[in-house]
Amino acid sequence: MEEMKKGLEGVVALDTKISFIDGIQGILMYRGIKIEDLADLSYDAVSYLLINGNIPNETELLEYSQEIKKNRQINGKQIEVLNEFDFGIEALDGLRTAISCTAHFDLENNHHSPDANKNKSIRLVAKFPTIVAALHRASFGQEPLEPNDELSHGANFLYMLTGKIPTELEAEAMEKDLILSAEHELNPSTFSLRIAASTLSDLYSAVICGLCTLKGPLHGGARKGVMDMLDEVGTIENVQSYVLDKLEKKEKIMGFGHRVYKTYDPRARIYKDVAKRLSIEKQDSSWFDMAEEIERILYHEFVEIRGKSLYPNVDFYSAVVYKYLDIPAELATSIFAIGRVSGWIAHCMEQYADNRVIRPRAHFV
Amino acid sequence: MEEMKKGLEGVVALDTKISFIDGIQGILMYRGIKIEDLADLSYDAVSYLLINGNIPNETELLEYSQEIKKNRQINGKQIEVLNEFDFGIEALDGLRTAISCTAHFDLENNHHSPDANKNKSIRLVAKFPTIVAALHRASFGQEPLEPNDELSHGANFLYMLTGKIPTELEAEAMEKDLILSAEHELNPSTFSLRIAASTLSDLYSAVICGLCTLKGPLHGGARKGVMDMLDEVGTIENVQSYVLDKLEKKEKIMGFGHRVYKTYDPRARIYKDVAKRLSIEKQDSSWFDMAEEIERILYHEFVEIRGKSLYPNVDFYSAVVYKYLDIPAELATSIFAIGRVSGWIAHCMEQYADNRVIRPRAHFV
Ligand SMILES: CC(C)(COP(=O)(O)OP(=O)(O)OC[C@H]1O[C@@H](n2cnc3c(N)ncnc32)[C@H](O)[C@@H]1OP(=O)(O)O)[C@@H](O)C(=O)NCCC(=O)NCCS
Ligand SMILES: CC(C)(COP(=O)(O)OP(=O)(O)OC[C@H]1O[C@@H](n2cnc3c(N)ncnc32)[C@H](O)[C@@H]1OP(=O)(O)O)[C@@H](O)C(=O)NCCC(=O)NCCS
Repeated sequence: MEEMKKGLEGVVALDTKISFIDGIQGILMYRGIKIEDLADLSYDAVSYLLINGNIPNETELLEYSQEIKKNRQINGKQIEVLNEFDFGIEALDGLRTAISCTAHFDLENNHHSPDANKNKSIRLVAKFPTIVAALHRASFGQEPLEPNDELSHGANFLYMLTGKIPTELEAEAMEKDLILSAEHELNPSTFSLRIAASTLSDLYSAVICGLCTLKGPLHGGARKGVMDMLDEVGTIENVQSYVLDKLEKKEKIMGFGHRVYKTYDPRARIYKDVAKRLSIEKQDSSWFDMAEEIERILYHEFVEIRGKSLYPNVDFYSAVVYKYLDIPAELATSIFAIGRVSGWIAHCMEQYADNRVIRPRAHFV
Repeated sequence: MEEMKKGLEGVVALDTKISFIDGIQGILMYRGIKIEDLADLSYDAVSYLLINGNIPNETELLEYSQEIKKNRQINGKQIEVLNEFDFGIEALDGLRTAISCTAHFDLENNHHSPDANKNKSIRLVAKFPTIVAALHRASFGQEPLEPNDELSHGANFLYMLTGKIPTELEAEAMEKDLILSAEHELNPSTFSLRIAASTLSDLYSAVICGLCTLKGPLHGGARKGVMDMLDEVGTIENVQSYVLDKLEKKEKIMGFGHRVYKTYDPRARIYKDVAKRLSIEKQDSSWFDMAEEIERILYHEFVEIRGKSLYPNVDFYSAVVYKYLDIPAELATSIFAIGRVSGWIAHCMEQYADNRVIRPRAHFV
């Protein structure tokens, strides 16, 4: 046994073909393609790429999108069960239970062939948005809305949430959000899911493992943290005192910092651009300006004064985008999961295909 | 980044005070106490030891046991929800959903203070057996049974399952099973749970992460695999051909082999003794004899012929014990979880107390 790296920092746990991060230069690729190029595709295309390994041609994409659309529905019994939980629970907790229930309704739940796993992965990708929207509506006593087959994955989610057809820019923002959230190498949720997969546990269980880990405020939960922070700060005038006060109390600012990126997160740059465009469409620059001011002050405090790297991560400007899309903070982690599920599934399949149980040691002290 | 060890074999991921394994000499200790000595305590005492760090004195143990007994009940609404799932699902899947629901009913679910976590951990330990028994009965259309306060943790579980007060030896066997299953350092389920905890996700989510990982046939699911194998083999005469056939097909024999132990698993020895005693009480040595024959042949094939180590692990003779306790194979993984939850909780608390996000790297190929 050798020396321990706390939090397994820099330790290589496995080989992957799914994504590549250069944390020094700020490069992220899914399957060898840069995130900047992927952001202009549809979520369906990126989901296909992650799970199948190649950018779909026109026919493949059409088929994949149709398969997803066909599987968006959740059945009546499932909705009944969801309604049972309407007692003020956190959205991500509800989603965890609901996905666990969804497995009960999947006749291939405990079938492990590659074909069965492919079928289940389409159902998972397809049903996540429906379930998140249905749970949210149920918590206000509202009936779920039927999916709208005319709309993209992201636009349809917004529609199922509110009943309104999103504007073109809103639809684009939601699609980009899901794409940028879809995959990020061995982040904690993906790593815990690969451990579940390495025991040859089933796809649903592995995905639920991912959800349970994503929830934490140091991981996917940070996006909600940023939205709460923006609400708390309220106006641009309060930013400076808010941030300095946090730093003095040695509290972390949500949406900043990263284990791997020591520079600007390339996803944050894309989100920032979308947030800016939304602020123009909505004729309200307040959220964007506040966020930019937080970024400016932290840059000054860390990079300029302390000579330390601390940049916005994926959760910072995504939270601003959600603000403009009128998404409640409560839903932020669940929506992150709607995007991430494709990356999770890809990692599960990769683990199954060349498996060895992931089982390190602990050092007894 | 450095060279990769497939499955993180031998890599030290973190420091722990909870347990110690010497895989060469076959030594296992919880909190510095040998498993052979722990096996003679009650499950409550071992659960207290794991979670609190010391063997409870008389008063502490009495209080802890009373707290657990007070929290064994699950409420009516919860039972209703459980009954919704009665559509032929796997027991462990049902347990995963049921524990996820239990969180919704816990008013401290998303409270993260050490006190709240302590309260939740007692509820988790207390309610696991009730839920496993209730789910099992529900799958036959039977009402759940009230917990029996006169009985130990293990004996009460057997009682809630069948309605019969177990014999002294049956009760002892169940208690020992839960103790031996309670903790095992960074096994896959515990490791995935610590990753969830390291994002500061809540205790229920972390435990559910553990359940999802335990399910796999290469981990907790192996116990069910052994029970199925014993059924398939049927009589001692079939053992030799069954085992040799498996080996020829390069299939693994469930309940054998271990990442860490390169010798006899010390828990297997204790289970073997309990299985033997049960076979005498039940006046039926068939399961025991068949198991011993499997062990003998594998010892011959691996240790004697190939000079390789392959010994029974924790799942082998535990499966034989379950056979004598008339436990359906279907329940094996869930019962494993009833024991393991104390170890999981201990690891969660340890992670929270000195946290850093667990986030390794992958090597892009
Ligand atoms: C993402 C994160 C968990 C990475 O953690 P890590 O690699 O373990 O980094 P550490 O927590 O060891 O931080 C390294 C240093 O940067 C500081 N730091 C890191 N993130 C910070 C933040 N968001 N605000 C203020 N300081 C921060 C730490 O305090 C530490 O300072 P020190 O060296 O003086 O002790 C961490 O940056 C964080 O908690 N960020 C906020 C939550 C968040 O946005 N998560 C989403 C990630 S996509
Ligand atoms: C527990 C286990 C996952 C450990 O896995 P690991 O450390 O990754 O070990 P490996 O799978 O690399 O096995 C090492 C060698 O032993 C052999 N082996 C391990 N367990 C075996 C088993 N149960 N039956 C037959 N051969 C086995 C492997 O085939 C391999 O042989 P090779 O070197 O010729 O390729 C593995 O032993 C196993 O799958 N056992 C059966 C399932 C089980 O009982 N799990 C419960 C564990 S508590």
